[in-house]
Order: sequence, then C-alpha cells, then structure tokens
Amino acid sequence: MKKEKIVIALGGNALGNNLPEQMIAVKQTAAAIADLIEDGHQVVISHGNGPQVGMIHIAMAELNRLYPGFTPAPMSVCVGMSQGYIGYDLQNSLRAELLNRGISKPVTTLITQVCVDPYDEAFANPSKPIGRFMTAEEARIEEKRGNHCIEDSGRGFRRVVASPKPTDIIEIESIRALVDAGQVVVACGGGGIPVMRQGNGLRGASAVIDKDFASAKLAELLDADYLIILTAVEKVALNFGKPNETYLDEMTLEEAKKYCEEGHFAAGSMLPKIEASMGFVSHRPGCKALITKLEKARDGILGRTGTVIHQ
Amino acid sequence: MKKEKIVIALGGNALGNNLPEQMIAVKQTAAAIADLIEDGHQVVISHGNGPQVGMIHIAMAELNRLYPGFTPAPMSVCVGMSQGYIGYDLQNSLRAELLNRGISKPVTTLITQVCVDPYDEAFANPSKPIGRFMTAEEARIEEKRGNHCIEDSGRGFRRVVASPKPTDIIEIESIRALVDAGQVVVACGGGGIPVMRQGNGLRGASAVIDKDFASAKLAELLDADYLIILTAVEKVALNFGKPNETYLDEMTLEEAKKYCEEGHFAAGSMLPKIEASMGFVSHRPGCKALITKLEKARDGILGRTGTVIHQ
Repeated sequence: MKKEKIVIALGGNALGNNLPEQMIAVKQTAAAIADLIEDGHQVVISHGNGPQVGMIHIAMAELNRLYPGFTPAPMSVCVGMSQGYIGYDLQNSLRAELLNRGISKPVTTLITQVCVDPYDEAFANPSKPIGRFMTAEEARIEEKRGNHCIEDSGRGFRRVVASPKPTDIIEIESIRALVDAGQVVVACGGGGIPVMRQGNGLRGASAVIDKDFASAKLAELLDADYLIILTAVEKVALNFGKPNETYLDEMTLEEAKKYCEEGHFAAGSMLPKIEASMGFVSHRPGCKALITKLEKARDGILGRTGTVIHQ
Repeated sequence: MKKEKIVIALGGNALGNNLPEQMIAVKQTAAAIADLIEDGHQVVISHGNGPQVGMIHIAMAELNRLYPGFTPAPMSVCVGMSQGYIGYDLQNSLRAELLNRGISKPVTTLITQVCVDPYDEAFANPSKPIGRFMTAEEARIEEKRGNHCIEDSGRGFRRVVASPKPTDIIEIESIRALVDAGQVVVACGGGGIPVMRQGNGLRGASAVIDKDFASAKLAELLDADYLIILTAVEKVALNFGKPNETYLDEMTLEEAKKYCEEGHFAAGSMLPKIEASMGFVSHRPGCKALITKLEKARDGILGRTGTVIHQ
C-alpha cells in the first residue's frame, strides 16, 4: 500500500460540548486516526473549535463583567486558548492509542496562526455567530464596543464575526519540520488564530476561520497527498434528503463545480467542505480530497467508501 | 564567540497581569531574547503563568457557577489554555523583533506536558495558592469538592494545589526536532501541563509545577549549555536586604548548597531558582546556570554580570 501524507480535518462538534464529552469523543477520534498511522501514513490533524471557543469566549466575557480589572479576550486570544484546551486532550488520547498498539511516536500540538487578508470581503459581512444568546439591551452594549450582533431565529441576539479565507500559515515551517521527522502534529486548531500582517508584526483579527478551508491550506502548503474532511455522513449526496437522493463515490473538479452551482450543497454545512476540497485538489494533479465519516477514514483511503474529489 | 544552546526561563509576573500589560511586557522580553539569537545562540524559551492561569481558572470557575452545563476546568486544562494565551503573544513579539533585525526564523509554541511523580511528597502538602480569594463559605464548598483551601494572611481563603517536581517532559522529542532545525521554541509554559503516567496514558494532576524546575529539566533533557533564570535582580545576594548584603558573581555547586543551608535564599522566591540551577548544573560538567535580570541576559552570557552557578 502506498504511504500517503494526509491532513485530517476533524469537526469541532465531534469533540463534544464540554470536558467529559471531549474526553470520550477524543478516544473514538484517536482510534480512527491511529488506524491510518498504523498503516504507515504520515498524518497531520486539524480540528474545529465551535463549541469550545464559544465556551471560552463566554468565560472570558463573564470574567470581564464580574472583575473589570480583567480586560475581555479578543477572538484571536480565545482561539489560541482553545488550541491548548483541545490539543492537550487530543494529543494525549492519540498518544495512548498509539502506545496501546505498540507505536511510539511523538504527538504534538502547535499554537498555529493563520493569515487572512484584511480586505477579504467577509469583513464587510460578518456572518459567523459566536458566544451566548444576549438580550436586545446586551446586544446594544456589544454594538457600542464595535462588535456586530444579529437577531438569531427568534432566540435572542448573538455576536457575529467575519469568516475570511486563509491565505497563509505562519508556523508552516515548524509543522513541516515535525512531519518530516516522522512525528504526528495537531495544528491549525479552530481554523487557526486569525491574524493579519502589519509590517513585520501580526495583528489578531476579529474573525473565525473555517476549519475546512484552513485544513485545505495546510494540506496544500505541506504538499499532502490527501485531505480528509470528516463529517456526519459517509458520502456526499446530490439532492440530499429528497426522494431522488444519490450518493457519490467520486467527482471531478468540474463536476463538483457544476453541483455547487446547481445548489446541491447547503451553505455553512456541506458547501464549505466541497469548496475547501476543490481548493486543495486544484493546486496540483494527483492529490485527492476525501469526505466521509470518522470511522470510515481508513476504508476511504483504501478506496472502499466515502466521496473522493480529484482533478 | 562560542554559540551556546540556551534555555531561558521567564517569570509569569514579567508577562503582565492582563492582556494590555502582556502586550507591552512581551515586547521588552522579545528584545532581550532577540539579542541572544542575533549573537548566534540557539534559544528555547519557557515561562511562568501565575497571574494568567489564575485568571483562566477564575474565568472557568465562574462559567461553571453561572452556566452549570459547563463543567469546571481542572488545573491541567487551565495550564494548557494559558500556554496558548501567553505563547501566542510571546512568539509573535519575538517573531516581529527578529524580522525587524532582518532575522527570519520560525518561532513556535508547543503545548507541553510535564510528568510528575504521583508519590511526590508535595501532593501530601499542597502549598501553592491559585485563583481568587474566597469567603469561608465558598472555601467550605471547595473543600467538599475535594480541593484544599487555606486562610491566606487575613485576606480570605484561597485554593492551594501541590507543586511537585518535574520528572520528564512528554514533548521533548518535538522540542528537540525544532531546536535542531534551527527554530526558536516556546515550551513548558507555566511549568508545563502537570501529568502523571497511568499505563500508556497520561492523567492531568491537580498541581502547578514550578517553572524554574521545569526549565531546568528542559535544559537538562536538551543538553543545553546554559540555563538562564530571569528575575527581578541583577545578581544573587547573600544576606539579602541586610547591612552586610553581598552580591555574588558566581558560586560552585558546593557553595550554593552551603548558602542554601545557611538560609540565605527566601523560599518561594530565590531558593527555587538556586535549587533549579543546582539541579541543572549537577547533571554534567561544563554547563552553567545564570541568574540575572531580563535586560542583562546578553551581558550575563558574555560574563559581564549576573550570578553564574557551575560545578
């Protein structure tokens, strides 16, 4: 079997909504990832952080409310904290699972910053809800602080931030050095800490980067063979949920583009996964994106299931 | 000039008590560290996290109090979060400072776990205060949860945790790989996430590891030439604060041992720095520990100031 370099994108929801859930979830995740490592593949792991960064954001905002001496933590800092929060558990469960199989391999989490373009049109149109529901009065105070809020489906108000596209990964040389040394790396957690270049410095952006796009950028910069995007379904479907629903084994870039235009994939759900996959596979011939369920990742790489996107 | 491999231990207090303070503090820190890198030395950075982990611990405890669906985060998780919180700012200010000097070198923070011995006697005697002051009633609730509290100098009650000695660093292979690749690494933040081995797994310990001891262990495992412990004074003093106060340029292991026994160094302040230094320099001849102020680090390595401890 060919040994592939694989970037795996895990969903933040798959990591549980609190610590006890996370500790159970990472064990299942670790088993699926260890399967690939046991087969000899080089694996780099990225993950979402929706529920986790939401929790940290709320905690830091409450801290500021109760003890005004503590300044509120911007989204970039909350993402950095979430990388520690999740990475610690994820690397440990994978390390233990590998040792249980007799594989001694370092597994390390890197605090990762991902660049975005300050002129990305997403900044003009913040759309990603974060944090808890607020009353109209609380939302008014948030707006005064310069933050954007929206009324969310009659359940109250929520703060929204931009979700710009990743343009670069600051720590890519470090990730590459560890991968080249045969180590397993957890990087770009939560899509990475969003930063913008300012001269020689980096400035945190009030944004959340989609973890599938960040993972695609990571796979591209590492020149990976595979990007695996793990989700709740085994295969991508056309006409999802309709009587004429059809599951796909594979699609070319052109087919994927056509299906997107025909509106087969839901925005904020399957669509960003397809678009991220297309971005990755378009960068060079031969590389593939695989969309499937966590427990089908190994079978997917063996060509037995999942939906493969290729040139 | 000889190119040395140097582990630098920064104090958590030197990093500021909140984000605006931290952003200013890391700039001064970055300048001092960049001096050493510009001189051609290999640098690994560790740091304390007292104020920062205290803040995160309070935030996560308040979150649990206000929204019981969120479980409280144990100390190990809070340390992991503090590594992201501090490392993000520290690596960025150092990266920018290096670029300002025309040096393009990756600077990366690793989530680092440090092993402790479950039979360390520190666990029988928790002594390190963490988190906010509590009322007697709040302290009683904490005690019921299995946590230890003490009455702190008439100002209220505080939770105390153990401060066991570090025995190993889980991510040492990753730190080594990056150092060998010529990169700058931030590791063992806050003394590292305290963990205990349990079969093939690791279990978070309710503890805080002293950052000077963790830094000494890091320097030992990396076979560093120098351990620099940065503190508020330029040199170590005998009879500190007394009329016969004497500043030391250097001391041998034997002299250091004698001074410790004579009670020259304050527990919880200079004593752990001296003990950590002794631990490091005793592991092989030729290596040195330097205790000085941040802005004197370069002069100290050049032999112009600071207190050097050697065999």
